[in-house]
Amino acid sequence: VTLLTDFGTRDGYVGAMKGVIASIAPGIPVVDISHDIEPQSIRRAGLLWAQATPYFPRGSIHVAVVDPGVGSRRKILAFSARGSVYLAPDNGLAGYALQRRAIRRVVEVRCRELFLEPLSDTFHGRDIFAPVAAHLAAGMPLEKLGPAARTYRLEAIPRARRRRRGSTVELRGEVIDVDRFGNATTNLEPQPGRFLEATVASSVRLSQLARSYAAASPGSPVLVVGSMGYLEVAVNLESAADLLGLRVGDPIRATWRVE
Amino acid sequence: VTLLTDFGTRDGYVGAMKGVIASIAPGIPVVDISHDIEPQSIRRAGLLWAQATPYFPRGSIHVAVVDPGVGSRRKILAFSARGSVYLAPDNGLAGYALQRRAIRRVVEVRCRELFLEPLSDTFHGRDIFAPVAAHLAAGMPLEKLGPAARTYRLEAIPRARRRRRGSTVELRGEVIDVDRFGNATTNLEPQPGRFLEATVASSVRLSQLARSYAAASPGSPVLVVGSMGYLEVAVNLESAADLLGLRVGDPIRATWRVE
Amino acid sequence: VTLLTDFGTRDGYVGAMKGVIASIAPGIPVVDISHDIEPQSIRRAGLLWAQATPYFPRGSIHVAVVDPGVGSRRKILAFSARGSVYLAPDNGLAGYALQRRAIRRVVEVRCRELFLEPLSDTFHGRDIFAPVAAHLAAGMPLEKLGPAARTYRLEAIPRARRRRRGSTVELRGEVIDVDRFGNATTNLEPQPGRFLEATVASSVRLSQLARSYAAASPGSPVLVVGSMGYLEVAVNLESAADLLGLRVGDPIRATWRVE
Repeated sequence: VTLLTDFGTRDGYVGAMKGVIASIAPGIPVVDISHDIEPQSIRRAGLLWAQATPYFPRGSIHVAVVDPGVGSRRKILAFSARGSVYLAPDNGLAGYALQRRAIRRVVEVRCRELFLEPLSDTFHGRDIFAPVAAHLAAGMPLEKLGPAARTYRLEAIPRARRRRRGSTVELRGEVIDVDRFGNATTNLEPQPGRFLEATVASSVRLSQLARSYAAASPGSPVLVVGSMGYLEVAVNLESAADLLGLRVGDPIRATWRVE
Repeated sequence: VTLLTDFGTRDGYVGAMKGVIASIAPGIPVVDISHDIEPQSIRRAGLLWAQATPYFPRGSIHVAVVDPGVGSRRKILAFSARGSVYLAPDNGLAGYALQRRAIRRVVEVRCRELFLEPLSDTFHGRDIFAPVAAHLAAGMPLEKLGPAARTYRLEAIPRARRRRRGSTVELRGEVIDVDRFGNATTNLEPQPGRFLEATVASSVRLSQLARSYAAASPGSPVLVVGSMGYLEVAVNLESAADLLGLRVGDPIRATWRVE
Repeated sequence: VTLLTDFGTRDGYVGAMKGVIASIAPGIPVVDISHDIEPQSIRRAGLLWAQATPYFPRGSIHVAVVDPGVGSRRKILAFSARGSVYLAPDNGLAGYALQRRAIRRVVEVRCRELFLEPLSDTFHGRDIFAPVAAHLAAGMPLEKLGPAARTYRLEAIPRARRRRRGSTVELRGEVIDVDRFGNATTNLEPQPGRFLEATVASSVRLSQLARSYAAASPGSPVLVVGSMGYLEVAVNLESAADLLGLRVGDPIRATWRVE
């Protein structure tokens, strides 16, 4: 079972969830992906799921509780994909990690008999997500959770636009994330051919596509291929985001020369 | 074994404790409740224990090290309650999670032969709490820790006052916690009858008792029943504490109409 | 397997590493030492390794990824010491926990066939450290990682200077760390004889060597013997670093009277 929430680590919420899981499925390992994303940030939770879940073994139960709609009529969904189960509120979150064609089945969680009693309207992480995940980890089949979901939301990383003009390829996209180091991940994928230059946030020009952070001279911004395969704006040993004032949503444009 | 400390996660203290436990009781799962509470905050540690420990299975060893008196003559206590053991300094902390009538036995930890050598006067988490918890988890009986404790301190969540006047019930209490989302938990429990209104911090009026955070219109403060069963002051998608300037200890008064 | 990185807990990096380990060595416990040290701080990572790794059982695989040189030609090393393996970039980090005479073997990690494919140049934690650690934990012998390393860097805690003058012993050293509580650890070890006084940061005088934090009157700075055996500047219930303006590198001088 992996956990991804916006509960933070200064309250008792994550502890309570782990207690519920340990009570129902003793001995099942629980791994934290993160609890420190910004409160209510569905987009960041989705990105973290995309970053981390592909590396876990088949048979994992991935639980994401970033859930502004807790206690409302929003559905809770269980996605079967890549041999694992992904449990999340129906708010689009799962789409960042799961493309539609990878999803084999989607079930709406309605197995009231598995929920904790009394069922709160403010903490479904403890009262619904944790017991359901524990029962799945202990071997319960997906069908027992409820009926097939007919409709559901899937948000995704926005796609960059690609345009070819003569021997030049131009990509236009945006900054989709800023990490702890201040590296700004974009939605541009590296292209074959010779990199020419990039402009980020309308004014910052980057003329180097470096192999690694360390390959850039300290203080000068470069592009590198980040760990998700996207281009990142980085400054060796410093925070590119702070130095260049970059934020999620800032536009980026990059060009390559092809044969 | 569960761990709750004020050691933070930027130093090596928690790692050292986990190393000691793994050395004595290999394979025993260790679960973090929190290490990020304010330094020396016995009250918050107690609240987190109250929030999380009831959800763990019987047979758990719960360890809390928020211990301004480390190295002094303060006692270390092991409480037997609800089929589990609660290990904490004798500073009142355990009382938030354990009411006097739930406690079956209290033992003073004096088993010097189990402590790490050399025994430091600054890090009993590593040198006393961790090895004692590991030995308990490995099956050592409670009696081996030391003699029965004759006196001990138990702090508790302050009780709200309840007053009935004709067909109106009034509760007076206070804010007892502010969580990561800025929700302000009070010590008021919901009453039967029709909710009339509440006043918090002398000036903020709340006229709605909502079923969930999402049931409130964004930006307007409401009361909801939080996950511990107490009334919380909340603002949908925002921090009630920031918006209304709420702090622990602020008074709250609420009224209900009964038949 | 223990993990120590500067990846923080707000991104998906640590989760990805744990997924890789769980995929290769299912059931192997993974313990976090810390992920919250300052980005690129090799010195702090080394100190935390020195603080925590000695308490883990023999046979542990300790992994430290604080790696400004990721993607460059810097080597990755596996040290065999104290019955455990220490995996770290060749940037000196391991020297804080491992003195040269404790090291039995050092191997350069070159087992390309164990690395993740495609191998990124920006996230060797996931693509090299995690799979190598998992294979070691699953029983792979150290020799399989690569050839013996002929040269490698080992940084260490700077040594204090000791001078005897008649019946007085004087130690000169520096502040080497400030912890979450604001206690300032120095590189001075307590001396036999009667403590006379100390001066830290050129101006702050300390006349008391207390047994514990609690033994000092609140608000007045004292020296205590910290949990690593070094003298710490502390203020009971407050942050000595904040109160006295102490920082890593500040000089300290202390004197004892001997017979």
